[in-house]
Amino acid sequence: MSFLDQEMAEEMILLDFWPSMYGMRVRVALAEKGVKYEYKEENKDEKSLILLEMNPIYKKIPVLIHNGKPTCESINIVQYIDEVWSDKVTFLPCDPYEKYQALFWADYVEKLWMEKGGEQQTRKKNYIDSLRMLEEILGDKSYFGGEKIGFVDIALIGICSWFYTYEKFGEFSTEIEAPKIIAWVKRCLQRVSVSKSVAEPLKVYNFALQIRKHYGIE
Amino acid sequence: MSFLDQEMAEEMILLDFWPSMYGMRVRVALAEKGVKYEYKEENKDEKSLILLEMNPIYKKIPVLIHNGKPTCESINIVQYIDEVWSDKVTFLPCDPYEKYQALFWADYVEKLWMEKGGEQQTRKKNYIDSLRMLEEILGDKSYFGGEKIGFVDIALIGICSWFYTYEKFGEFSTEIEAPKIIAWVKRCLQRVSVSKSVAEPLKVYNFALQIRKHYGIE
Repeated sequence: MSFLDQEMAEEMILLDFWPSMYGMRVRVALAEKGVKYEYKEENKDEKSLILLEMNPIYKKIPVLIHNGKPTCESINIVQYIDEVWSDKVTFLPCDPYEKYQALFWADYVEKLWMEKGGEQQTRKKNYIDSLRMLEEILGDKSYFGGEKIGFVDIALIGICSWFYTYEKFGEFSTEIEAPKIIAWVKRCLQRVSVSKSVAEPLKVYNFALQIRKHYGIE
Repeated sequence: MSFLDQEMAEEMILLDFWPSMYGMRVRVALAEKGVKYEYKEENKDEKSLILLEMNPIYKKIPVLIHNGKPTCESINIVQYIDEVWSDKVTFLPCDPYEKYQALFWADYVEKLWMEKGGEQQTRKKNYIDSLRMLEEILGDKSYFGGEKIGFVDIALIGICSWFYTYEKFGEFSTEIEAPKIIAWVKRCLQRVSVSKSVAEPLKVYNFALQIRKHYGIE
């Protein structure tokens, strides 16, 4: 970084909501790159004017505002962060086929959370099947990308805050169903970039209970 | 291309199905890059062994097989093509923010077709609203990326084969609702890469009628 760059302070604001696994992706990505930012917690019941202005299409967090310019949709934001601070660690491989594979599996992870409706038992089965598929992809590697944390790891990372909630609601043990994923979570949590960015499982569970109560699902 | 590269013939196979707008994206991308490939039509009623082997996760076309290695999910495939044949025209801009914008809008287009279920009138309204939003983004430019065809154009291109079907089923005129999009379609169709890659609107309509009949929607 040149003297001039240092002088021109970058303005970086993250609109986020603490239990959001999409938000966690962005928090981890920024922490891994060592990028400082101002965190603004959104109110779940009333969206802020800045959120509506910066993400008029989806009106959803997370939104990263870099020198006044917004980026939305967490996978896109992480890719943006990776490209802007490319002199430090990189999340996506350079080789086109390896890069394709990382994008493919990040998209697969994205779809894990998109499934809505249908029988609860079917969703639970699909969810566990997906975790097992991800275990196969992880294989004996430390991280999905190999020895270093990468794009797919960051896409999946928020899950560690939600495992406890899923287990309680779905009545299963992730440790039994997908032990390699649990080992991967523990490995990720040893990184300060991760442990400081993700929400506490119990706090997330209490939040989920409140939401259920609010919608009359008990 | 060096003498050695020419000697090492690349094997390129596209598994596709003619009315697929996802397939059309890949066809246009390959045509724009001047990449030759073997086109293999998939049977809609019985998936081929090669499709099941090459895309075990989703079992869907399009799949581009490059020297034996499969790439799946059309947006990812187009990005792969863009990176591998990067010495020719490029679809994604180099600037990280412009690239982010292209990926954001390609994803927006992707979501246009993902909406399923719900009231037909609501879906029609959302679809037309989305086209109008895309008109705003296009503005007075020739293509979404500017003067050259780019990533968002390729993501949206398959729509031109389906407009007629949507209009007949939804009873509306795209020309009236989104005239700039129609002008953009006509501009795209002047390119051989597009006109030779997309399906005939009337043929698509007849195909859609057959599908409706098959599922008892008449």
